[in-house]
Amino acid sequence: MHSFPTSSPPSAPPFTKQTLEITHSYISPFLSAHALITPHIHRTPVLTSTTLSALASTPTTPITLLFKAENLQKIGAFKIRGATHAIARLSDEQLRNGVVTHSSGNHAQALALAARTASQTRGFPIPAYIIMPHISTPSKIAATRSYGGILTFSGPTSTEREAATAEVQARTGAAYIPPYDHGDIILGQGTMALELQAQAAELGYPLDAIVAPCGGGGMLSGVAIACEGTGVRVYGAEPREGADDAARGLEEGRRVEKVGLVKGVFTVGEEEILGAMGLVVERMKVLVEPSGAVPVAVVLGGEGWKEEVERWAAEEGEEARARRGGRGYNVGVVLSGGNTTIEKIVELFGKKKE
Amino acid sequence: MHSFPTSSPPSAPPFTKQTLEITHSYISPFLSAHALITPHIHRTPVLTSTTLSALASTPTTPITLLFKAENLQKIGAFKIRGATHAIARLSDEQLRNGVVTHSSGNHAQALALAARTASQTRGFPIPAYIIMPHISTPSKIAATRSYGGILTFSGPTSTEREAATAEVQARTGAAYIPPYDHGDIILGQGTMALELQAQAAELGYPLDAIVAPCGGGGMLSGVAIACEGTGVRVYGAEPREGADDAARGLEEGRRVEKVGLVKGVFTVGEEEILGAMGLVVERMKVLVEPSGAVPVAVVLGGEGWKEEVERWAAEEGEEARARRGGRGYNVGVVLSGGNTTIEKIVELFGKKKE
Repeated sequence: MHSFPTSSPPSAPPFTKQTLEITHSYISPFLSAHALITPHIHRTPVLTSTTLSALASTPTTPITLLFKAENLQKIGAFKIRGATHAIARLSDEQLRNGVVTHSSGNHAQALALAARTASQTRGFPIPAYIIMPHISTPSKIAATRSYGGILTFSGPTSTEREAATAEVQARTGAAYIPPYDHGDIILGQGTMALELQAQAAELGYPLDAIVAPCGGGGMLSGVAIACEGTGVRVYGAEPREGADDAARGLEEGRRVEKVGLVKGVFTVGEEEILGAMGLVVERMKVLVEPSGAVPVAVVLGGEGWKEEVERWAAEEGEEARARRGGRGYNVGVVLSGGNTTIEKIVELFGKKKE
Repeated sequence: MHSFPTSSPPSAPPFTKQTLEITHSYISPFLSAHALITPHIHRTPVLTSTTLSALASTPTTPITLLFKAENLQKIGAFKIRGATHAIARLSDEQLRNGVVTHSSGNHAQALALAARTASQTRGFPIPAYIIMPHISTPSKIAATRSYGGILTFSGPTSTEREAATAEVQARTGAAYIPPYDHGDIILGQGTMALELQAQAAELGYPLDAIVAPCGGGGMLSGVAIACEGTGVRVYGAEPREGADDAARGLEEGRRVEKVGLVKGVFTVGEEEILGAMGLVVERMKVLVEPSGAVPVAVVLGGEGWKEEVERWAAEEGEEARARRGGRGYNVGVVLSGGNTTIEKIVELFGKKKE
């Protein structure tokens, strides 16, 4: 069973380099981003689970898993961080004509809610124009509308989506806020790593590594850059048989991997992902969407993962070993989103039995 | 979306009559019970949901729902409170031969874990003998074993279960701890009401009412007695087409109702319960078992419920109205447990579509 009362209250003081004990040169923009978005997002709890930690441990190396529950974030996913930050960085002048993006997923809901929140703080309406493929699931469409998004439907190909976006931009003068490839989005998503590091330390389990989904690449990049110089190893996780999104994420992940910030990318199959999702739901009692369960599947036994963990111990210097003092490793796992439905669960797990 | 970082840390000071601002005569034994069990249970968070509160409101009366998330409690249900308390009240001498109960549900897991925890604090082994009907679901059997319970299987009727219990008691000398009808169990379950009242007040939503499942009656009785004299109205919730358990709960609920502590018992049908369960899972992203969703179904529109709420306003004196100062009502809702499985969800919701 996991323990809950672990997150600080929302009134927790803002991070500083001192509280994080981090002094390297990449951290400052993340601290600024975090200060900007903190009033508008949840400081999501960090959950633990004895059962899942036991499953993640190797015969020689005990592992404690620390789950960053962004499935309990506003709009049900971490994407609200990037969208809120990207909007916060624009001037009143730039926001007068609204914002626009194309997304069939959580970024659509995130931008719609972030624009609505900013409308209140700025004191003028900021329309959020969302281009969605007409084949999007009804629940995603309904959710985006419920946050005030103004929808335009397009064909499903990227060419059609981009053309529709350009048309709305030309007609409205709205500022384009892409889902991934944007500095302020990456900084916003990366703020999660600051919280996770601080919360893990508060719990007495300072992080040795973080496993995050590749997704579109924005969050993995942000987490990797934010952790640079902290000694926390950052890994990407992705489904083996991928949708378009996963392929795009892989590409982005590999790019960050090449720069040396991401130590590796691990892949898992659909059965492993569903198994991990089931364990999170049944043992931790929180809902996670399949893509959000990918890092869980990796740490529970994705191909090559446990060998990687054993390498940490083998490669560890005397000083690091002394600092650890015989304890195992503490691994942060990002539960990136919880936006799925009962209907989808029935579809995914019902067919397993046939 | 609900907000999370609402519960106090586990290091919160113990309750006193002063912090609760309650001075009536029933509260003291609950405060003592809470002090005894606090080191061994989670102070579960209180969750809120804008969507569900809106659904619960009437055209004239805004309602804020405050969900006590006992589905995130140890063993996944509130029953650990009563079991921990009942064991804490026994002497070393009484515990030497272990404890025994018959249960096919959460009380079995609760007693097994509570005995294991007490073994550590008392410094000697306390076996937990659990009599389960042989038709119990494999997941319940596995969970009870995983907490160290020593299982004996019996026939499914109460006569068979009681005979098996008596046999184990005679053979081992273990102390019998029943699931419901026991003072220390009722006091233990009632501690939840103290936490819920305190947490709701901390959040700025002092409670006007609590809706709890009838279940076996132990928790409803405890909550009702603990709230006596506080001005918080306590209601029972139960399924219309009931299993044995529900019927037993109804009987117990009616008994407490007759004493005047429970203001009323509301019933809901299976469709309403599944609808409520789906909303909790999809909107609040936490898992609740069907029986734990019964109070949610009541406050979202169980027969007669909204009329009851409107009566509060109609019957309210000047003083109470002035104290409310124009705000709506704040209703605590107990999410009593989260012990269900993906397989069960597929079964329950898959058949809905056929």
